[in-house]
Amino acid sequence: MSVSDVQHVTSRDNPLLKDLRKLAQDPGAYRRLGRLWLEGDHLCRAALARGVRPAIAVFSESFWPAAPVELAQAAVKKIVIADALLAAVSGLESPAPMGFVLDLPDRPELLPDAPTVVLDRLQDAGNVGSILRSASAFGFSQVVALKGTAALWAPKVLRAGMGAHFGLRLIEGVDASVLDGLTVPLVATSSHHGDWLHKARLPHPCAWLMGHEGQGVSAELEARASHRIRIAQPGGEESLNVAAAAAICLHASAAAREA
Amino acid sequence: MSVSDVQHVTSRDNPLLKDLRKLAQDPGAYRRLGRLWLEGDHLCRAALARGVRPAIAVFSESFWPAAPVELAQAAVKKIVIADALLAAVSGLESPAPMGFVLDLPDRPELLPDAPTVVLDRLQDAGNVGSILRSASAFGFSQVVALKGTAALWAPKVLRAGMGAHFGLRLIEGVDASVLDGLTVPLVATSSHHGDWLHKARLPHPCAWLMGHEGQGVSAELEARASHRIRIAQPGGEESLNVAAAAAICLHASAAAREA
Repeated sequence: MSVSDVQHVTSRDNPLLKDLRKLAQDPGAYRRLGRLWLEGDHLCRAALARGVRPAIAVFSESFWPAAPVELAQAAVKKIVIADALLAAVSGLESPAPMGFVLDLPDRPELLPDAPTVVLDRLQDAGNVGSILRSASAFGFSQVVALKGTAALWAPKVLRAGMGAHFGLRLIEGVDASVLDGLTVPLVATSSHHGDWLHKARLPHPCAWLMGHEGQGVSAELEARASHRIRIAQPGGEESLNVAAAAAICLHASAAAREA
Repeated sequence: MSVSDVQHVTSRDNPLLKDLRKLAQDPGAYRRLGRLWLEGDHLCRAALARGVRPAIAVFSESFWPAAPVELAQAAVKKIVIADALLAAVSGLESPAPMGFVLDLPDRPELLPDAPTVVLDRLQDAGNVGSILRSASAFGFSQVVALKGTAALWAPKVLRAGMGAHFGLRLIEGVDASVLDGLTVPLVATSSHHGDWLHKARLPHPCAWLMGHEGQGVSAELEARASHRIRIAQPGGEESLNVAAAAAICLHASAAAREA
């Protein structure tokens, strides 16, 4: 490649570097900047495998000379940043020596009949990312995050989602009234009432409602559901982690459809 | 209560405070100090519900006067710490105004025939804690963490486990040869071969093998297993988060037993 393809950054006042710091460290910065920061080769490769084309590929000075070609050539625009400056961008304990900058995808329209997962005020970025990953794995192609849920494209959610974002229709920051636009039945998860999952007849396609880590699905939202499902926990009374519960429910849906 | 029950700490050089900082911020400090730090009323209540008796109950100056009686009276020894000093102990983004200090439980003997989960070099504390929680919920009473797995009693694992630790037999830092002591069959999870979970006949009781986030169950460990199981992912080729996969497998075991 020609030298002109590659821009070197050595000043901490570089405007792109300022944006990267915001994108990496502020969960909601992508909404203002319209861009995403994917850090680390694992996540970047997962995005490439989903057909993502990054706007910019970013490398540390020391990593760049040996960067694998599929990462080095992934974007027309390549930025090489002094190691210490790139490390200061990161929100990770072990900063990665490369990453991609992506344009934030356009927000899709709600698809009325898509297998859907609805997130009701989930707080934990790791939980949200894990649920996106499970949704993708089990053929739930649409995720609706109600107001109060963690920002879907935040760096921690992107890392936990491990590329799932790029295969899903993601609709966030909406009121529950948006669910009126769904023609698939709503299935509420509960920790204390409803039909036992392993004995229930599950509708398909459907929209699973997953609730806040402490409070579960809100009463108002549960009232909209046509089915209420709970998971038998023979070991005791405790409730599961919500991402664990979501995985179990979405897998059961996929298995019931195949059976 | 008499004034003598309560000790006030106002110096950052207080020896207990130094220990709390280590316990809260260093995942392996409990091994050296023989104590645990449970931060926040949610986790402390979960421990109390499991019959745990804390060695010390710790409160901030401002929280102490209004501390709920079940927390205030949970330990004979109560320590009240200046707000800023207690906040500096925490490893959390939002430090909690109370916590418990516990003696590290004695390490139990391996129970040969207990429903068991084996963790093979799992790295992420949140995953490990979530799996302990699922194990407890689904009646898997013993967890064996092989060498290279995240420290089971680390603060992040304790928080994600939400009390599950106190209802489980936890054995950590051991070689795979320890599994020779199990009489239950070993069931390996795999992302690319084995019987489909939703069609498999699952042995019960058994020991599920859950593997490293990137590499899965090691070949050496898988060779010890009598069953190999994979989870159908009709949405695509991606692999699930390991805590999500564990939840699905442990739930399937519990449901198969009941059916």
